[in-house]
Amino acid sequence: MAFPKLLITGCNGLVGRILWKKLSDDFDLYGLDISPGEPSGKIFQADVSDLEQVKSMFSRVPSLTYVAHLAGDPRVDASWDSVFANNIGGTKNVYDAAQTFGVRRIVFASSNHVTGAYEGFPPSLHARPNPALIARRDPIRPDSFYGVSKAAGEAIARLYYEFYGLESICLRIGSVTKEDDPRVNPRFESTWLSHRDLVQLVKKSLKADVKFGIYYGVSNNTKRFWDISNAEVELGYRPEDDASKFMI
Amino acid sequence: MAFPKLLITGCNGLVGRILWKKLSDDFDLYGLDISPGEPSGKIFQADVSDLEQVKSMFSRVPSLTYVAHLAGDPRVDASWDSVFANNIGGTKNVYDAAQTFGVRRIVFASSNHVTGAYEGFPPSLHARPNPALIARRDPIRPDSFYGVSKAAGEAIARLYYEFYGLESICLRIGSVTKEDDPRVNPRFESTWLSHRDLVQLVKKSLKADVKFGIYYGVSNNTKRFWDISNAEVELGYRPEDDASKFMI
Repeated sequence: MAFPKLLITGCNGLVGRILWKKLSDDFDLYGLDISPGEPSGKIFQADVSDLEQVKSMFSRVPSLTYVAHLAGDPRVDASWDSVFANNIGGTKNVYDAAQTFGVRRIVFASSNHVTGAYEGFPPSLHARPNPALIARRDPIRPDSFYGVSKAAGEAIARLYYEFYGLESICLRIGSVTKEDDPRVNPRFESTWLSHRDLVQLVKKSLKADVKFGIYYGVSNNTKRFWDISNAEVELGYRPEDDASKFMI
Repeated sequence: MAFPKLLITGCNGLVGRILWKKLSDDFDLYGLDISPGEPSGKIFQADVSDLEQVKSMFSRVPSLTYVAHLAGDPRVDASWDSVFANNIGGTKNVYDAAQTFGVRRIVFASSNHVTGAYEGFPPSLHARPNPALIARRDPIRPDSFYGVSKAAGEAIARLYYEFYGLESICLRIGSVTKEDDPRVNPRFESTWLSHRDLVQLVKKSLKADVKFGIYYGVSNNTKRFWDISNAEVELGYRPEDDASKFMI
């Protein structure tokens, strides 16, 4: 039996590269990125802020079932103009194309910065003992234009689920590091998401029975301050790593 | 003592005209609209989707304290391109200018369509007996690109409050009709907001001690399905009208 097709937008970014390596055993992978990256017949160059480019790219992958939508400006301090076009506009374009071409489910890379203001300016929650957990039902408190853009992306995802039945799992991803080591920033002892926990979370998001949800993506860090109980119950997420084990 | 200055964006729209008439006893009013409307030294023509036009207009009203931000595409079935530019981009531009010029508080015209999908497609909740109230803490469920754009506006408002301390009261306004009569649509027996309740709600939003909040704006309709308890407690809102009294 053929693997189901999964398109990763932003496949040449940090998270995209991790997923590309680890999801090929279960999915027939396609990629989209604004940068050309390594040449491949299955990776297409397109700018998600341009609807025609996105639709043209989707048209080249018949019977596409899943999308992992990671494309966009990943910088927390990105300008309004950039996140407006790339993150808000780009997310609407990807959902538009996905709905047009019959995609069943999108895993959307939202961000912990949707509620980043709970951590203070600059973030200090990680330095406090036993802070109350921030949970999915708490009101959004973006800390940046980037955080606003991800909140808008979650709203777009919700609309396409309500109106068209296009399923979405929105992941408020924590701190993923290139070297898979949380010790580069004291905050990451709370917010780190290891590569293998990321991969588990995305795989389970693609397969879960729940059809729409918003979840924090974080490892089982001793100092974690995001509530992952809904991810445990609804997705079966069982994170294996703990940033505190790296700290001496 | 001089009245505090209040700028109404979208002053020539339906809600804008109602507020313009009723707030002049308490505020020194200024207006901004994309259409020229009646000529006046205190009403400026500007397109909120253009940041330079918005900033130029704000610069002409020294010591501006309050903004009622109503400008944007008001149609529930507006296209993505229109709400993207006018409602999302326009709201960011108004907040940007307000922060730049030292505004203290914005009353933002959000919309019940941020949670419109709770009503079904097409809306049928108003026809059900005793539906559960939809409350501010319930997850957003936009029913349209318009609803997405207002959810994004609430996120922008929250960011400016968190980051700059610019205060915002976001009102998820119900159904305001030109003739102030709810009988034009059966749904309005639940969702109607009378002119005088609108004016009371906006006045109290401008004066309330609370510095950020999101509230449903609806009259005291017998068939109301939005929870206004937080508006009663935090703003002192006491709606006086009931759509059911119009129905024979």
